[in-house]
Amino acid sequence: MKNNLYFKKENKKFYLKDILLKINRIPDGIIANNKIYGVNNLKEANINEISLFNNLKYLEDARNTKAAACVVNENNKKYFNKNSKTFLIVSKEPLIDFYKIVSLFYPDANKDDENIDSINFKNLNSLFSKKVYFGKNCLIAKNVNIGNGTNIGNNVIIKNNVKIGNNCNIGSNVIIENTLIGDNVLIKSGTLIGQIGFGFGFDKKKRIRFPHIGRVVIENNVQIGSLCTIDRGSLSDTIIGEFSSIDNQVQIAHNVKIGNYCMIAAQCGIAGSTTIGNYVKIGGQSGISGHLKIGNNVQIGGKSGVISDIEDNKIVMGYPAKNIREFIKNK
Amino acid sequence: MKNNLYFKKENKKFYLKDILLKINRIPDGIIANNKIYGVNNLKEANINEISLFNNLKYLEDARNTKAAACVVNENNKKYFNKNSKTFLIVSKEPLIDFYKIVSLFYPDANKDDENIDSINFKNLNSLFSKKVYFGKNCLIAKNVNIGNGTNIGNNVIIKNNVKIGNNCNIGSNVIIENTLIGDNVLIKSGTLIGQIGFGFGFDKKKRIRFPHIGRVVIENNVQIGSLCTIDRGSLSDTIIGEFSSIDNQVQIAHNVKIGNYCMIAAQCGIAGSTTIGNYVKIGGQSGISGHLKIGNNVQIGGKSGVISDIEDNKIVMGYPAKNIREFIKNK
Amino acid sequence: MKNNLYFKKENKKFYLKDILLKINRIPDGIIANNKIYGVNNLKEANINEISLFNNLKYLEDARNTKAAACVVNENNKKYFNKNSKTFLIVSKEPLIDFYKIVSLFYPDANKDDENIDSINFKNLNSLFSKKVYFGKNCLIAKNVNIGNGTNIGNNVIIKNNVKIGNNCNIGSNVIIENTLIGDNVLIKSGTLIGQIGFGFGFDKKKRIRFPHIGRVVIENNVQIGSLCTIDRGSLSDTIIGEFSSIDNQVQIAHNVKIGNYCMIAAQCGIAGSTTIGNYVKIGGQSGISGHLKIGNNVQIGGKSGVISDIEDNKIVMGYPAKNIREFIKNK
Repeated sequence: MKNNLYFKKENKKFYLKDILLKINRIPDGIIANNKIYGVNNLKEANINEISLFNNLKYLEDARNTKAAACVVNENNKKYFNKNSKTFLIVSKEPLIDFYKIVSLFYPDANKDDENIDSINFKNLNSLFSKKVYFGKNCLIAKNVNIGNGTNIGNNVIIKNNVKIGNNCNIGSNVIIENTLIGDNVLIKSGTLIGQIGFGFGFDKKKRIRFPHIGRVVIENNVQIGSLCTIDRGSLSDTIIGEFSSIDNQVQIAHNVKIGNYCMIAAQCGIAGSTTIGNYVKIGGQSGISGHLKIGNNVQIGGKSGVISDIEDNKIVMGYPAKNIREFIKNK
Repeated sequence: MKNNLYFKKENKKFYLKDILLKINRIPDGIIANNKIYGVNNLKEANINEISLFNNLKYLEDARNTKAAACVVNENNKKYFNKNSKTFLIVSKEPLIDFYKIVSLFYPDANKDDENIDSINFKNLNSLFSKKVYFGKNCLIAKNVNIGNGTNIGNNVIIKNNVKIGNNCNIGSNVIIENTLIGDNVLIKSGTLIGQIGFGFGFDKKKRIRFPHIGRVVIENNVQIGSLCTIDRGSLSDTIIGEFSSIDNQVQIAHNVKIGNYCMIAAQCGIAGSTTIGNYVKIGGQSGISGHLKIGNNVQIGGKSGVISDIEDNKIVMGYPAKNIREFIKNK
Repeated sequence: MKNNLYFKKENKKFYLKDILLKINRIPDGIIANNKIYGVNNLKEANINEISLFNNLKYLEDARNTKAAACVVNENNKKYFNKNSKTFLIVSKEPLIDFYKIVSLFYPDANKDDENIDSINFKNLNSLFSKKVYFGKNCLIAKNVNIGNGTNIGNNVIIKNNVKIGNNCNIGSNVIIENTLIGDNVLIKSGTLIGQIGFGFGFDKKKRIRFPHIGRVVIENNVQIGSLCTIDRGSLSDTIIGEFSSIDNQVQIAHNVKIGNYCMIAAQCGIAGSTTIGNYVKIGGQSGISGHLKIGNNVQIGGKSGVISDIEDNKIVMGYPAKNIREFIKNK
């Protein structure tokens, strides 16, 4: 997570001890007296940040983390190095406790606010120097930045924390928030980008929603179809790499990273935190589970269900997806 | 179907004989002289209501129905008890004939009217005592009821027969009609709730659309993602139980009943009249056929196709979905 | 492709030699001096049109084409008759070169313009003689034609080149462009019809988008659900035959032709240029690959993946879809 987080962070710093109290934990053992400045994923956390270890896929990151503290369940405690300087907050509900900690720093990041401090529609053209075209009935938040030569459709809502580059085309009925968009990007009508993802847990029958402090980053020359949903990241960004192309009705969950020159056909779904390489082609209606790594130049046949990592240059198909020759032989 | 039907029912009562004439049937045999007050499903019909038996899954309901009359094809006549007081309307096209009967009572329930008698936008804040926040360009029908602390997004259309509880958050571009929503419900942007479902037949090359006289009932603390479609019920309600969570691009057909604390990931589809228990988890892109019964605590792996009932506590995957161990063994 | 193309064609005619120069090809061999008036598919092209042969499924069409010229790769050159009068433009990137040629004739057909020269909303009722109902906040282009008794919902955008027949019902938040709609058609809310399809290639790292000069043709008595995307044709039309019914969240790609009285359940996707016969039933979440031919009366089980042609009257299921008895036996 770069420094350019969009969400307003509370300017407070918390003592680790106070954080534990705030999640109703009685601090036991010796707690370092250091202050915590924020939260981050295991890999990128620095010595003043708290992280979460809740999935064995991130074992290496856990072993090497520099985080000041890490929320972890009893069972996963053993994976940390004995001489690790990371304080382990052992929890029966690591996700819930971590959500609560994130919310201390970002109290507004677990929802999408529909109340936009928008520019008066009549001022849009003067404010954007007539180099941006706006359709009818647009709502554009005051802190939005739009480049020259960009066309915005009708009934478009651009909420806080959006920067759009030059020569983009945004269709009608599009909603964008918490998103950085490069140049020459096409987003077709009815697509929703940057909303909060599907993450939550229950604490004593109360829903605790995951704070999503990441953005969506859409690089130059990307094309996105109609009626897609691309959720913003939770602790890192959701990224669509340059020249990648996405067809209609595609769902991209939080923290997904898609490389360059990828092609994703209609009605695909990519679950949270999966990483996809460059030049990957994905046939229509395919689904990819969360937390996977798909290599470069991979081809995934239509309607495949991918439930494990795929190495570079493989051609797969089926559910679960396997080598295409094996798929055809067995059918 | 409770008494609180939203659709205006014709205040007329029809003699059974007249109903037969209206569907172009010459009444044969002895017809009781009782009056018919309305229509209902087999289970809930009382002695003044007409019902339909067209699916063997409802055999028990047919055997025990109290309905005054029931539309049935020649072949299914035999399943009724000989001493049943239900008059059987034997039909070559039971669905079509039943649709026509329902339309006698509910002439407006087979379409969605876009012509809303809406509140003047400037009056919204005064009418709702400033305890409800409305975004820009909302259309709110005059008979809509919205609780305190609820936020409504931009370009939202709330048509007739909608009640929304307290502290809800409704995203932008949402359309809601014929729906009862509890407290603390989140509905994300672009979702459509309460429209007519996909039911119709053809009568002499004329399309006869099923009248949908049911509602959508969304209980407290439900969360629904973006770009979902949740159709209203035909003869009963479509129900989402409390604390259940639905991700983006999910389709819930008419009469589906989802229990409490369920989790339905993105791009799932649940076909008409299926019942799902409590604490059920459904992976992304899964589909569940119509008229099924899914037990409590069931887990359905991503991209599964469920075509038969599932007992409590089962973990299934695949297409057709089977025990997860069997699925993995065979792959 | 009929004569009633919606896209403005450049009134120029090009010498074949000049066309070659414009795609940076040095004309070699003897080139006929004939003028080219436009582009077309292999089957319908006349002696003044250029076509493309890039898929062996169209081998018969290539052998019989009357086209003045045809873009083809080195390998497919051999399939043309030796005495064919068609000049072969042999290309390493036939799609890219053909896109460039199409763009010579239709420079605006590779994008969707959101800048509508719309009728002043207050004039809508007077212009349409009060026989058309319009909801709030509609944007209707000046060249749109709407029949009597048709109802248009709220926030509807009807862009250029749209003709809607009598007694249609168009839901709210619908966007339509480049589309011909018959009588008694129902289009539910949130559906997008007539946008450009998902076709493009890369030329020296520059994206070349396929010009879509076709329309969507929706015949009488069709019903289309909510949140569907139906893309317009590239070189021919996308067609939905009369009395066909499409449920919610369905994706119909460019050039797809669907016959009469078909039923397509929710969340299906049909890839580009596939042809579907009459009375075909397709279960929910099914996908059909591109360039296939599905016969009449075919039934496709829910969640099937169809990757080859299907003969008349077959009942198939599975992925890849096969005879339903075989599917059930193997499971």
